[in-house]
Amino acid sequence: MKEIKVFAPASVANVSCAFDILGFALNDIGDVLTFRKTKEPGVKIIMKNEQQLSEDPEKNVAGVVALAMLTMAGVDFGVEMEIEKGVSPGSGMGSSASSAAGAAFGMNHLLGGVFSMQQLVKFSMIGESLASGVEHADNAAPSLMGGIILVRSLNPLDVISLPVPENLYVTLIHPDVEVQTKKARLLLKQTVPLSDAVIQWGNIAGLISGFYSNDYSLIGRSLEDVIIEPARALLIPLFEALKAAALSAGALGSGISGSGPSVFALSEGKETAEKVAKAFREIYEPSGIEFKIHVSTVNKNGTHLI
Amino acid sequence: MKEIKVFAPASVANVSCAFDILGFALNDIGDVLTFRKTKEPGVKIIMKNEQQLSEDPEKNVAGVVALAMLTMAGVDFGVEMEIEKGVSPGSGMGSSASSAAGAAFGMNHLLGGVFSMQQLVKFSMIGESLASGVEHADNAAPSLMGGIILVRSLNPLDVISLPVPENLYVTLIHPDVEVQTKKARLLLKQTVPLSDAVIQWGNIAGLISGFYSNDYSLIGRSLEDVIIEPARALLIPLFEALKAAALSAGALGSGISGSGPSVFALSEGKETAEKVAKAFREIYEPSGIEFKIHVSTVNKNGTHLI
Repeated sequence: MKEIKVFAPASVANVSCAFDILGFALNDIGDVLTFRKTKEPGVKIIMKNEQQLSEDPEKNVAGVVALAMLTMAGVDFGVEMEIEKGVSPGSGMGSSASSAAGAAFGMNHLLGGVFSMQQLVKFSMIGESLASGVEHADNAAPSLMGGIILVRSLNPLDVISLPVPENLYVTLIHPDVEVQTKKARLLLKQTVPLSDAVIQWGNIAGLISGFYSNDYSLIGRSLEDVIIEPARALLIPLFEALKAAALSAGALGSGISGSGPSVFALSEGKETAEKVAKAFREIYEPSGIEFKIHVSTVNKNGTHLI
Repeated sequence: MKEIKVFAPASVANVSCAFDILGFALNDIGDVLTFRKTKEPGVKIIMKNEQQLSEDPEKNVAGVVALAMLTMAGVDFGVEMEIEKGVSPGSGMGSSASSAAGAAFGMNHLLGGVFSMQQLVKFSMIGESLASGVEHADNAAPSLMGGIILVRSLNPLDVISLPVPENLYVTLIHPDVEVQTKKARLLLKQTVPLSDAVIQWGNIAGLISGFYSNDYSLIGRSLEDVIIEPARALLIPLFEALKAAALSAGALGSGISGSGPSVFALSEGKETAEKVAKAFREIYEPSGIEFKIHVSTVNKNGTHLI
């Protein structure tokens, strides 16, 4: 084996009402990591793009994951990781999770597959913790495993793969403004009214139910966030207009992807998802803010060799 | 039609983590309501047992439901309702909901079935509001509809029938101490830490997922309530001992039924549910407190004519 290459997809976490417990993987957008075994121990990182990300392995999301895995495996070799970022940092599409998931998956391959998927999610969380100051798995788990992933519990880690409705499409707009996860977390109140929590968990239960029962209307009715979105929406230019446009175009619902600034919408069918993309474009084009729009199914493959 | 008789089952609401949004109906235990049309308008109530419940229709749970339905239907006749309580008031098994559901179902029959199931749930909520001071549907909806019912939203009302795992059994102990729903609600803090809310909705999502996927282990892991149970457990003598005994006997999980004092456990299979019943008995017998124990599947029929 001279080298291996891994693709680790972007992901949408939180999914409106399901803050910190739900995420799904996207197609096409993702990081590509190339791994080469080295005789000298330790981790060497080469950033092919996104030069503002550190190449110091202890300050790099993929680096800390690789270091932890080398240490845990107790091997005498090292690794060189070349990272080509496809997911922009601070986009709200799980950029750090893609790098962490890619590192965990690729390293496991180099190490002969000694670690379980659950362990790979845990290793990825080391990277997430470096990036956001908080251990979470709602981007890393879907990026690794693909599909829609419920993180029922972090401690102990309990991740559950949910069914993906066959005709579910994602439209995503990434405005070129940076929202740091750390800062977005600081906006959140540390307590919530019990009455709002009850509304929120009713919606979460409805959303999970909708995924299992292929009930698009129920998915739509459940995509409402009364706790996190009201606090974070202010960070995203034209958020309310995007959301209204998505619903007018026929989307089931729309919300902040991760901690923003990307905004996602879910639709039944590609045609509606394309209409939502057009509606997003019409909102953003006059603003002068750069943006990218993606239409995607839910990626069922997760991180894989290429 | 001289008279009709209706059976309205008891129910378990809240179901650990799913405060105010989930409930399921029980077999065997329930209220029996007998309806007779009368020429004179209005509602006459005859309590066959439980004499402490008012026979004044405006102060009786079934009475306010029947009055509202007569008014809404705009008919010129009245009704005499004979109520035989099978669900003890203040037991935590949805006593007021059984009477409300029975009244709604029976009245709808008398009125020629003009109201939808959703409307019947709404009428039942008028009774629930009289009983507890709060409109809720997590007992009345399962009592009416049977099965496991998710109340995704109260406003607008959105109730969803969840799949019932084939081999799911309930063990329930009803200690003879009264807990009034109104008082149990006063014990709850009006705000919750966001971190606890996230743990709770992870468990709710896991529980719903477990019902759909027949994953008993996931149901068990999800039956944990970090918000309501810690506040209310103090009202129930020997609660922690019951819970520990249920788990030792092999139950998936255990928690407070409604606002207590009844305590339920869920098990995979009747044999385990019977073991849990035995374990409950061994905890309570030495206490000197009177109690009743029931073992039941989830009642899939709901309220029906007998």
